[in-house]
Amino acid sequence: MTGAAPSRFRASILTLYPEMFPGPLGASLAGRALAEGLWSLEAHDIRAHATSKHRNVDDTPAGGGPGMVMRADVLGRAIDAVAPPGDTRPRLFMSPRGRPLDQRRVRALVEGEGVVILCGRFEGVDERVIEGRSLEEVSIGDYVLSGGELAAMVLVDAVVRLLPGVMGATESGTEESFESGLLEYPHYTRPREWEGRTIPEVLLSGDHAAIARWRRAEAERITRLRRPDLLDR
Amino acid sequence: MTGAAPSRFRASILTLYPEMFPGPLGASLAGRALAEGLWSLEAHDIRAHATSKHRNVDDTPAGGGPGMVMRADVLGRAIDAVAPPGDTRPRLFMSPRGRPLDQRRVRALVEGEGVVILCGRFEGVDERVIEGRSLEEVSIGDYVLSGGELAAMVLVDAVVRLLPGVMGATESGTEESFESGLLEYPHYTRPREWEGRTIPEVLLSGDHAAIARWRRAEAERITRLRRPDLLDR
Repeated sequence: MTGAAPSRFRASILTLYPEMFPGPLGASLAGRALAEGLWSLEAHDIRAHATSKHRNVDDTPAGGGPGMVMRADVLGRAIDAVAPPGDTRPRLFMSPRGRPLDQRRVRALVEGEGVVILCGRFEGVDERVIEGRSLEEVSIGDYVLSGGELAAMVLVDAVVRLLPGVMGATESGTEESFESGLLEYPHYTRPREWEGRTIPEVLLSGDHAAIARWRRAEAERITRLRRPDLLDR
Repeated sequence: MTGAAPSRFRASILTLYPEMFPGPLGASLAGRALAEGLWSLEAHDIRAHATSKHRNVDDTPAGGGPGMVMRADVLGRAIDAVAPPGDTRPRLFMSPRGRPLDQRRVRALVEGEGVVILCGRFEGVDERVIEGRSLEEVSIGDYVLSGGELAAMVLVDAVVRLLPGVMGATESGTEESFESGLLEYPHYTRPREWEGRTIPEVLLSGDHAAIARWRRAEAERITRLRRPDLLDR
């Protein structure tokens, strides 16, 4: 540590729907941190970089087929304006074809200076801008959304909560799913009995070692039952 | 087809942040469909079902540890108010411990009458309400969010875009990632050359059979390269 102020995490979003931001990222944990200046968010309108009379950002797919494809020239200009040479932040393109986002990648992004995120719409984007601007395709899961905006919000939320100073003492980033390679153990709180269901005795015993053993065993049991693939990694 | 009006898809969200909704779901494709009445959305405030003087919805975890746990009694009342007996919609709880959402599950939800979604916050929810109200835990990916709200929006967006009448003739739900078990082939559009990069010749050939073969081969190549796990399913 040098004592220098930490570099603030900057999220720059390229979208056809800048009005969607900050949206949910402006509330709750991420929103408080945004207001406190622990991170910053800019939503840039891709359409501002269209040059045709009708400000078209898309055109019909080469080779035919349904839908419209976002143009490489428009997207290239938009990216260059937001992330000029020297901007070393990762350039992400939210896409179901991308590498699945996981907590390890989230942790790596937390260490960086921010992200530039391109949100696609319509049928997709011209492949050449992915290559020409070295975009990293990232998927938040094996399903298709109407656009990349919600996916970008998910990624940013996952990162922002782990930034220094965002979670308080009453919150936690250490004993949750994936941090130990396991799904999380079950939680209980008052009341002690609810509709005939009780809290497991061990959790009320005050025996901290026994509680830690029980939680570890439950986390392993649930992971083996639901996500054996996580144990093989 | 009986000629009866299709039952409208109803999404009921239980959240501590009802003001986050519709948020991004009120814009673009999902937002237009919402305005046209093709689906409906209600966001219910969990806090309205707290009965203590300070309207607490959470308490400290039994057995100790960081964070707060959402109470089973408060959540049970909230769920009962929103989804009374006879409401056959699936009751989902967005959680990284859940079954990973995929396009097949999305398609199944499209066939139903809607969803009831509980959004967690803090450290988690009391396990007994998951059991006592038969909640189905659903995960949108292997990362941790600050709450279930963005995850709920992701699920609803994925479903809504596939509802009858939502995507127009210029849009598509058939030739995209996962629908054929493969990632999507690359897209190109005008201009024909951009920064020295050209569109693959075959796509300009007008030979529809050759184009279809090329797209299929590209989809297989990209899937084998990036997500061989999809080919094993």
